[in-house]
Amino acid sequence: MEKRTEIENLGEFGLIDKLTEKTQKYQDSTIKGIGDDAAVIDSGDYFTLVSTDMLVEGIHFDMMYTPLRHLGYKSIIVNLSDIYAMNGEAKQVTVSIAVSSRFSVEALEEIYAGIHKACELYKVDLVGGDTTSSTSGLIISVTAMGTVAKDEIVYRSGGKENDLLVVSGNLGGAYMGLQVLEREKEVYKDNPNMQPQLEGVDYILERQLKPEARKDIVHHLSELGIMPTSMIDISDGLASEVKHLCKAGGLGAEIYDEKLPIDQETYDVARDFNLDPSTCALNGGEDYELLFSISQNDYDKIKDSKHMTVVGHYTDKNAGVNVVDRNGQSIPMEAQGWTHF
Amino acid sequence: MEKRTEIENLGEFGLIDKLTEKTQKYQDSTIKGIGDDAAVIDSGDYFTLVSTDMLVEGIHFDMMYTPLRHLGYKSIIVNLSDIYAMNGEAKQVTVSIAVSSRFSVEALEEIYAGIHKACELYKVDLVGGDTTSSTSGLIISVTAMGTVAKDEIVYRSGGKENDLLVVSGNLGGAYMGLQVLEREKEVYKDNPNMQPQLEGVDYILERQLKPEARKDIVHHLSELGIMPTSMIDISDGLASEVKHLCKAGGLGAEIYDEKLPIDQETYDVARDFNLDPSTCALNGGEDYELLFSISQNDYDKIKDSKHMTVVGHYTDKNAGVNVVDRNGQSIPMEAQGWTHF
Repeated sequence: MEKRTEIENLGEFGLIDKLTEKTQKYQDSTIKGIGDDAAVIDSGDYFTLVSTDMLVEGIHFDMMYTPLRHLGYKSIIVNLSDIYAMNGEAKQVTVSIAVSSRFSVEALEEIYAGIHKACELYKVDLVGGDTTSSTSGLIISVTAMGTVAKDEIVYRSGGKENDLLVVSGNLGGAYMGLQVLEREKEVYKDNPNMQPQLEGVDYILERQLKPEARKDIVHHLSELGIMPTSMIDISDGLASEVKHLCKAGGLGAEIYDEKLPIDQETYDVARDFNLDPSTCALNGGEDYELLFSISQNDYDKIKDSKHMTVVGHYTDKNAGVNVVDRNGQSIPMEAQGWTHF
Repeated sequence: MEKRTEIENLGEFGLIDKLTEKTQKYQDSTIKGIGDDAAVIDSGDYFTLVSTDMLVEGIHFDMMYTPLRHLGYKSIIVNLSDIYAMNGEAKQVTVSIAVSSRFSVEALEEIYAGIHKACELYKVDLVGGDTTSSTSGLIISVTAMGTVAKDEIVYRSGGKENDLLVVSGNLGGAYMGLQVLEREKEVYKDNPNMQPQLEGVDYILERQLKPEARKDIVHHLSELGIMPTSMIDISDGLASEVKHLCKAGGLGAEIYDEKLPIDQETYDVARDFNLDPSTCALNGGEDYELLFSISQNDYDKIKDSKHMTVVGHYTDKNAGVNVVDRNGQSIPMEAQGWTHF
């Protein structure tokens, strides 16, 4: 009998490792393949960056509460975020969409309205794609391309012990937005006449449904004369991304619970849900903020920034990856990330 | 009541036109967006080419007769074909896959074995991708990247009146392979104990299940000192592709029925199915051959080639796109192409 291993037994990252371990390199222009936010291709005077992501109905989004326009917008944003996480400038995208016949032309136009809006705001060009039918549901696959000067590229690796770990914006909002939407969906399913309770949670809903990518942070760091030593975008939750950086750089890390930037609305709603706001900030995904490390010498340049918060620092690899709680206790960090399988 | 237009009423090309008509250009490096086989990006010393395609279970392939390894192989080939159709060299690919839990890790490894094989034979690097779950079925989205010297790029436009229209290889085989597979599927559904009748049709089955991209033709033309004036790959059937070239170039065309290159096996099986072999060659898709135009001055260089066949020539736009039958009658060409919607 043929061997059958369930995908869920490996998890997303284990699966990717297994499937791509036999990858060979044939082209000199391939500088970096799988294993960072974007692939890196030598284009002579600079590097070209390429990143791709697939959004699947029922897995990444729920049509019951996801406006199509926002979905189109978000599908672009999540890919641009990967280009910015390499310290690059996003320039072009391709979009492939598979839809079943339950979607109308007008529905697709709504998705594209969001795509065009994101392209306009981030100044990227929609240059290609594919449109096809599916037997069920909606799938959007986006590939983003960008460029970065060869001496300005920032990888996941490259951090050094004692470098400061910094996050842009705030964390946990997208996750709490999702919790609110899921709660209202359940209420609606029980009684379709109930009006959804979405007052006072605009910010976290927008974090979930219409996130932004931190192009501004890349520019801001450049203006401040700061070159991050390592960088990643926060799509799967801070804890998961810190672990990625530590693995890539051969380092450990300490993250300070009390430093985690959490918006008041996120905090309040987490409390309403009887959730620990810090856990939401550590493990909630889809914030699309940037996590990066800087030399301690650069601390003065960012310490007054409203857009960036120092949340910890790299340590020796043997110290592991830890969270220091409000009592000063260092405990191993659990990265649950987003497991789709 | 909201307006609802069914996608099938527009067709694939009409839909793409409608969805992308509002596309803006923000980046100077974007040379050519939607509307050719690949997007063209200025990379300084040369152009970067980008093409993307999505294969959806139940639409583009049937798991009942598609070996997973071949599916992985084909998913790469169909994208490389688009790069070669720009006279370029394919260099990198990204692969995103969504699968439902009915697929095992071993099944995915089979798909990747095919992907790796195609990468090895065509010397392209797998540099990124995404692996996620789907609620049903298997979806593969591939993006291929390549390069081409700026003075060697070939667009769909660029042909001139009287330029010769040339196809590589032969046509209709992939379509007849599909007919055989569909026939055997029906037989199997009626009686699962019946053995499939696949003897003597190896060639057309391979054309359907494991096609090749014509990298060799691009090299061959270069060696012969021929620069095509226009080019496209034949994914949707010759008739459909001739129409694309004519539309892009503002030209008409005459295709000679008796010149269509049809393999003997394709011919024989078409006859078995009571199909006109020429119709299969004109409208059968998925051959992934190249269709291109050359100056009449280059005719002597290719007239003895086993790999290329002159099938017609460009005419004035007002003459339309026609097929000249074996009686010398010129009749308007119908391009049914592949309509997935």
